[in-house]
Formats: sequence, C-alpha cells, structure tokens
Amino acid sequence: MTNDAPPSIYNDSFHFKDLKITPTTTPQKGPEIGGRTDHMVEIHWDSVNGWSQTPEIKPFAPLSIDPTASGLHYAIQCFEGLKAYKSTDGKSVRLFRPNLNLQRLNNSSRRIVLPEFNEEEFLKILAKFVEIEARFIQPGGFIYLRPYHIGTNGGLGIRTPTSSTLGVVSTIMPNFSAKIMSLYASPPNALRAWPGGFGSSKLGANYGPTLEQNDVANKLGYDQVLWLFGENRVVTEAGGSNFVVVWKCADDESKTEIVTCTLENGTILPGITRRSAFEYLNEKYANDENTIVSEREFTFDDIEAAVNEGRLVEAFGLGTAYFVSSCGTIRSPEGVDIKIPLPIEGRTGPVAEDIRTHLGNIMYGNTGEFDHPWRYDV
Amino acid sequence: MTNDAPPSIYNDSFHFKDLKITPTTTPQKGPEIGGRTDHMVEIHWDSVNGWSQTPEIKPFAPLSIDPTASGLHYAIQCFEGLKAYKSTDGKSVRLFRPNLNLQRLNNSSRRIVLPEFNEEEFLKILAKFVEIEARFIQPGGFIYLRPYHIGTNGGLGIRTPTSSTLGVVSTIMPNFSAKIMSLYASPPNALRAWPGGFGSSKLGANYGPTLEQNDVANKLGYDQVLWLFGENRVVTEAGGSNFVVVWKCADDESKTEIVTCTLENGTILPGITRRSAFEYLNEKYANDENTIVSEREFTFDDIEAAVNEGRLVEAFGLGTAYFVSSCGTIRSPEGVDIKIPLPIEGRTGPVAEDIRTHLGNIMYGNTGEFDHPWRYDV
Repeated sequence: MTNDAPPSIYNDSFHFKDLKITPTTTPQKGPEIGGRTDHMVEIHWDSVNGWSQTPEIKPFAPLSIDPTASGLHYAIQCFEGLKAYKSTDGKSVRLFRPNLNLQRLNNSSRRIVLPEFNEEEFLKILAKFVEIEARFIQPGGFIYLRPYHIGTNGGLGIRTPTSSTLGVVSTIMPNFSAKIMSLYASPPNALRAWPGGFGSSKLGANYGPTLEQNDVANKLGYDQVLWLFGENRVVTEAGGSNFVVVWKCADDESKTEIVTCTLENGTILPGITRRSAFEYLNEKYANDENTIVSEREFTFDDIEAAVNEGRLVEAFGLGTAYFVSSCGTIRSPEGVDIKIPLPIEGRTGPVAEDIRTHLGNIMYGNTGEFDHPWRYDV
Repeated sequence: MTNDAPPSIYNDSFHFKDLKITPTTTPQKGPEIGGRTDHMVEIHWDSVNGWSQTPEIKPFAPLSIDPTASGLHYAIQCFEGLKAYKSTDGKSVRLFRPNLNLQRLNNSSRRIVLPEFNEEEFLKILAKFVEIEARFIQPGGFIYLRPYHIGTNGGLGIRTPTSSTLGVVSTIMPNFSAKIMSLYASPPNALRAWPGGFGSSKLGANYGPTLEQNDVANKLGYDQVLWLFGENRVVTEAGGSNFVVVWKCADDESKTEIVTCTLENGTILPGITRRSAFEYLNEKYANDENTIVSEREFTFDDIEAAVNEGRLVEAFGLGTAYFVSSCGTIRSPEGVDIKIPLPIEGRTGPVAEDIRTHLGNIMYGNTGEFDHPWRYDV
C-alpha cells in the first residue's frame, strides 16, 4: 500500500461535452451552515450500456432507488470529500488536488467492485458544478463537495453490481479547524480496520460500524475516536482524520520527530491532506538533521512516555473536513485524560500552524502561492 | 458472543393494529424466479417523533432517498433473510423461528446505532405481509423475505442517525440447496472479519467488501469464498452460509466429530440455520459417546489432514439462502482442489441429509412436525 494508485482503466466513459444542465427553479437564498447547495451531479452506469452518455447537473432532489438495491443492503458504496475554496477577495474559486480525490474514488470503486470512471471527464463536470454553486461560498470560506458512487442494481443478489450511480452533492459545513480536538482512544475490544480488510479505501463500510464507539466518545464529551490497533496499541487514525504527533526523540532530545502512521499495512485512509502535509514537510526538512519526518508505526505507549518525560511538542489531526486540528486531550483506554501541549497561545503547535498556513495559502490563493501545482482553478 | 441476544429495549413502537394496507393496482401474473412480490412493508422512525404510528404495506415501488442520507454514504444499514414456506399440499404457509431473525435485526440495528423496534409488533406485520404475498409461493416452495433497516437522515454528518426506514421486501429465489457447492478458500491477504470488528452482525458492511474475493472465486468457477482467519488459517464461514465439517477423529477413528466454528470471537454470523441444526444435533447425540458435536475453532490444515488420512466424511454449508448445501470441492489457498466426499449418491452426506430432512419437515409442515415450536404459522 502506497500513496500511488494503479492507473485507472476504463473502456467507455461519459463526456463533459454531453453534460446536461438543468438549473433549479427554486433557488435557496444563500449559504446556510448545515444546509446544501441547489444542484447535484448524477451519472448512471449499467453493465449492458456502460456509462450514460448524458451526465447531468440538475436540481437537488431525492434519489429514486429500488428497495432491493445492492447499495442499500450490501454497502456497495464509496465516497470522497473535498472542498471548493474562495479567495478572501471573493474573486476566485479553486479545488485542492482534486485529481487525487478522483483517483482514490476509483480505487475505492474497484475495492467495492463498482466500475471505474474517467477521472479527467469527471473532474471537468465537478468543476462546472462548483462554478454553478460558487455563490454558496463565502469569501475566505469553502463548501464541502461529496462525490459518491453506489450500487443500484436490484434483486438482492450478492454479486458484482450491474448498475450504479456516480454523483456529487455539496453541503455548507462549519469550519472545524479552529476547534481544539479532544480524542477518545479506542478500547482493546474495538477495531476500526485490520490488515487484509478495507481500512485504506473510502468505503461506507469504514464509517457506520465506527459510530458505536464514536457515540461512547461523544457522550463522554470527546470529539472523535483515536483508533488503536492490536496488543501493542498502534496509533492508526482518528476516524475523521489522520493523526500526527511531534515529539523530541527519546534517545536525543536535540532532535524532533514529526510522525504519522504508515500506510503499509492498509489499515488507515491515505488522506490527501496527510499526503500533502508530509510532502511539504519532507521537502522542508530534507537537509535538516535535527528534524525527522516519519511515516511509521508508533504506539499509544510512545505517546504516554513522551508526555510523561516532557518530550511531547504537539499532536494534531489532518483531513479534509477537519483540515489541521490541534489536539488538546486524549483519553487513554484506561480512562485517564492525557493533556497534550498547545505551545502557541494554548490553541495549536508550531508544526500544525506551519502546515495550516502553507496549505491554506494554496487553498485560498493567498500571496505567493498563485501558481502552485496543487491548485485547480475553477 | 453467544447465540443469545440481550433483551431489546424500546420506549415507543409502531403497532400492528395501525397497519395501513394499500393493495397494488398492477398485480404481477405470478411467481417468477429472480422476480419480486407485489408489495413491501415500510415503517419510518425519527429521533423527534419516534416510530411512525402508520406502518404500511403498500405496492412495491422505488424508495425516495435524500442523496446525502447516512444509509447511502456510511453504510448505516443492516438486514435479515428468512423464508416463508408453503406445504406440499398448498394449504398452509409458515415461517421458521422468525423471532430469532427479528432479534438479530435488532442486534444489528444496535451495532450500527439504528433504533431498536418492537419485535412482536413487527412479526405480526411481517406475517400479514406473507399472507398477502402467499400466492407467490409454490406448494412445497418458498419466497425469500428481506427485512432491512437503513439510516435516512441527510446532511452527511458522521453521527448517530436521526431517522431511519425499516422495511420488508420479498424475492423469488431459486432453490440453491440441491446444488453441490464448490468453495474457494480465501488467500492470506484477504479477511472477511476480525475480533473487535462487526463480523457477527448482519450489516451491509460485511457483504460488499467481500465481493472482491467473491469475484475471483466466481471467475475461477467456484460458488463461494470459504473465509479463513489468521496465520493458523482458522475456518470461519462461507460468506453466504456457516460451514460444517464431519470427520472421524484423528486420535480415535471410532468417533465422529461434527464441527463448526465457534461464535466466541465474534468473526462469524450467528446463523439461525446453524443454531437450529446444532440444537438438533446436540439433543440427538447427547447420549451417543461416539458422536461429538462441537462449536470450536478448527483450521484448514485440519481439513487437509482429514482428507489425506481418509477421515473426512462430509462438509456442508448452513444458511437461509443455501439451506443445507453439501460441499464437493474446496480450492486451497495454494490453488489445489481438495475433493470432499459426498457419500450419499455423490450428492450429499449423512449429517447434511439428516439436518435437511429434520428442518425441512418443520419448515414445510411434513408428517410428524405439525406442532413443532420452531414453526410460526401464518
């Protein structure tokens, strides 16, 4: 398992040039937190005719789904999450590395035996959708984009789907990134994913089953579950985000390590914010002997030791919804609240702040990052 | 993990007495293999009003679902499978231990944080549905019933669902039980479930992700995957059914063991056919010193050794869809086809045949089993 997906193969495709756009006749007033935008993308596939030759952008409306559809019974469903950002002057709108999201959606589709789609054509349709919905984005703000792919074939057979719907909807999500995150480390009898399973694909099946523990965490006042794995309590991810710890090294406190779980055993989501942050950090610290950037297994005991020995610098989550969220507390599986340092004004740490600024500049088109290759202007 | 579920708790309920029945105005001709019946059950729940006070049986039709619904994105969905059987004289229709299916559906609902429902009221509605659809059941045949429960709340939040739909649809499924099953043992890098996961709940999330291996198996000509677990290659279940092996004991060939995987580590579905067969076998062989009935871990190596030493008597699957399906071949993870004996006329073995006859008599109301407590007459 690496960040790089195998190339997608598709014999047929829908085309942007055939896009049918039906504007809503009942536009909403404007952006409302928790609401949605006016339209949606809908593209159908079936095993006889292949991809529909009429991809559509149409008014947001309920889907009509066979009650025996494979997507409702067998979790034949996968999705993506990305954002469309508007510059603070309100003049430009862009996506952040959307090609990686569509590549991952094809990986997820393959994992759940749904057909692959043409990423280039889909990206053009997605960009058109964002252009149409741009009035819902505040200057210096974003909307959340949710591409999804679900099996629609009926009949209850447990087999490779014979029809599917590929769609996009968009919601107006609050900005979680300013919040200081508190985490609930998972108990030993609850696992999010396992080697040989599907934890590295963005399948619906990775989310619903985690809600049981998420509920426990929320009821005790924690924001998310920090998922540990195995007897050694390997720190994997935080459900809604990847997880990063910064500490002074135990064997040489003049050195700092920035560490996140490896993708190697396939139990965590290969996040695009994670990838981007680590590509940036690797480049930045390439020639810095005192800063080690690591993607490797580390354990909950390592975090506890670093806290106890005063070596922990900071910890934070990385993800699309939460962006860069500094962590202030982790409840251990033994029920002890471990305080995580927030060295900058009690709200964040130096590495989180650096990543937040660097990626934020690219996302919002701030000074100096206008030509960055990770930008995709709409 | 045992067969016995904790008691269900529900503060409010829909009621059979409030059932609204709307007959179809476009009835189908009659049963067609691969088709469906004319109607469906639909009952709604939301966190403000609780269960709908108007459960409905209405014409089969597409569901109207918010494209941001939790059931479409986060696999907040679970289901059941049971059958309605008609006696060979065509005069009576019955279910087989339906209370256990509804208890398991409540267990699954709890696991995926959907609300529990009143099993007694739901059973009365299910029975009414079967009564209405009875014309689709051939004498000596069955229809397949699919209760399901899905999250319907929109907005894309990853949280405890605030609304859901509990429904029943029914399909006309072929009789798989006569077929001799060939199995494809899973490779070491593919796992269906894990202790601490959700393999013992009937969630959609246990099915879709298995299709990748199922596809490989089908393309090589095998019917189902036999899921092995861990380095010791523990034999767990066959995806669509539990799995039973009968062999002469290695240390004393005068003794026969009938063995299936234990429910203890939570990685297999606690099948109702499995439970019924093992309750029957345990009672039958309670005083027979030469027949051991076991629910315990056993490995693929144990099967290979029994075959090589000529001790293997038979192997079969147990489940609702497949009922009792004798197994003729298992492809080992090394790619070797292992021939499994079919001592009775090359089509089955003595234990499978005994279970098939005993449970079949109860299901179809054959001689001598009219008053069996496992019958639920419609």
